[in-house]
Amino acid sequence: MAERSGAPAARAVLQQCLQAGLQVQPAEELSEAQAVQIDRGMVIYICFFKGATDDILPKMVSTLLSLRLCESDSGKMVSVSELPGSLLIVPQATLGGKAKGRGMQYHNNIGKEDGLRLYGAFVSLCEEELKAASSSAEVTVKHGTYGNRQVLKLDTNGPYTHLMEF
Amino acid sequence: MAERSGAPAARAVLQQCLQAGLQVQPAEELSEAQAVQIDRGMVIYICFFKGATDDILPKMVSTLLSLRLCESDSGKMVSVSELPGSLLIVPQATLGGKAKGRGMQYHNNIGKEDGLRLYGAFVSLCEEELKAASSSAEVTVKHGTYGNRQVLKLDTNGPYTHLMEF
Repeated sequence: MAERSGAPAARAVLQQCLQAGLQVQPAEELSEAQAVQIDRGMVIYICFFKGATDDILPKMVSTLLSLRLCESDSGKMVSVSELPGSLLIVPQATLGGKAKGRGMQYHNNIGKEDGLRLYGAFVSLCEEELKAASSSAEVTVKHGTYGNRQVLKLDTNGPYTHLMEF
Repeated sequence: MAERSGAPAARAVLQQCLQAGLQVQPAEELSEAQAVQIDRGMVIYICFFKGATDDILPKMVSTLLSLRLCESDSGKMVSVSELPGSLLIVPQATLGGKAKGRGMQYHNNIGKEDGLRLYGAFVSLCEEELKAASSSAEVTVKHGTYGNRQVLKLDTNGPYTHLMEF
């Protein structure tokens, strides 16, 4: 994890969930809204900053999947892969904001093209790692669509909100 | 807002909501679980660090209530008091965690007694300021119980997760 004094390359907010759903496609004239959903597991809100590269992804993913951020049925803190739990990954550019006057500025956020690529690679790596770490058929990785509005519903037994920077 | 190089005195994660509910008292043998709920507005997850004092509260509260973090019906970014929206304040000690190996450590978190006092003062100030800023009868401040498990349900039209340090 990056020291607080250096500018981070990525910021993640993590919340434990019993169930979480995300609309990935809004309703249109001829089609209903489409949504993805996970049951027990972790929601990862993720934002990449300028200068972030693919190099940081393996460490990020292994850290997020192995840190003891979730509470098991017996009350013990375990990692999401030990739970075993699913992941809902939410691209969240607002996490990179800085207050300037009464408004928010996003000058440090990564450009759209690089952000899209890193986000896709991050999701793929989470899928690989979670699959490798857990043999449970119920465990899954779902994710939002980069650039879309993230319409989220969250149900927790205590969100245990964590912040991680990389 | 504190510069990133200095240790912050408080950390807040903010999410816009359409509706959010928090259990403030778990079910017991003779009583049902008690919950509070807000409709449209903002959820504030809050954590105080060692060294935090009451001095920081007025600036924190005025910043949180006046920053344009919420989306109005017309798609314009406005403050929660301009929306006008309610507040759900959630004490969230996990926000102060630092990864150490696979576990989380909370050495920088404020002690329980000071934390409880600051949290209470923070809630009171939010109530005063929101009341002063908005004449809408529907606008309200609800909050979790310091030290309890925060059983949260959140419904958003895009959580717009923000991080603020003070």
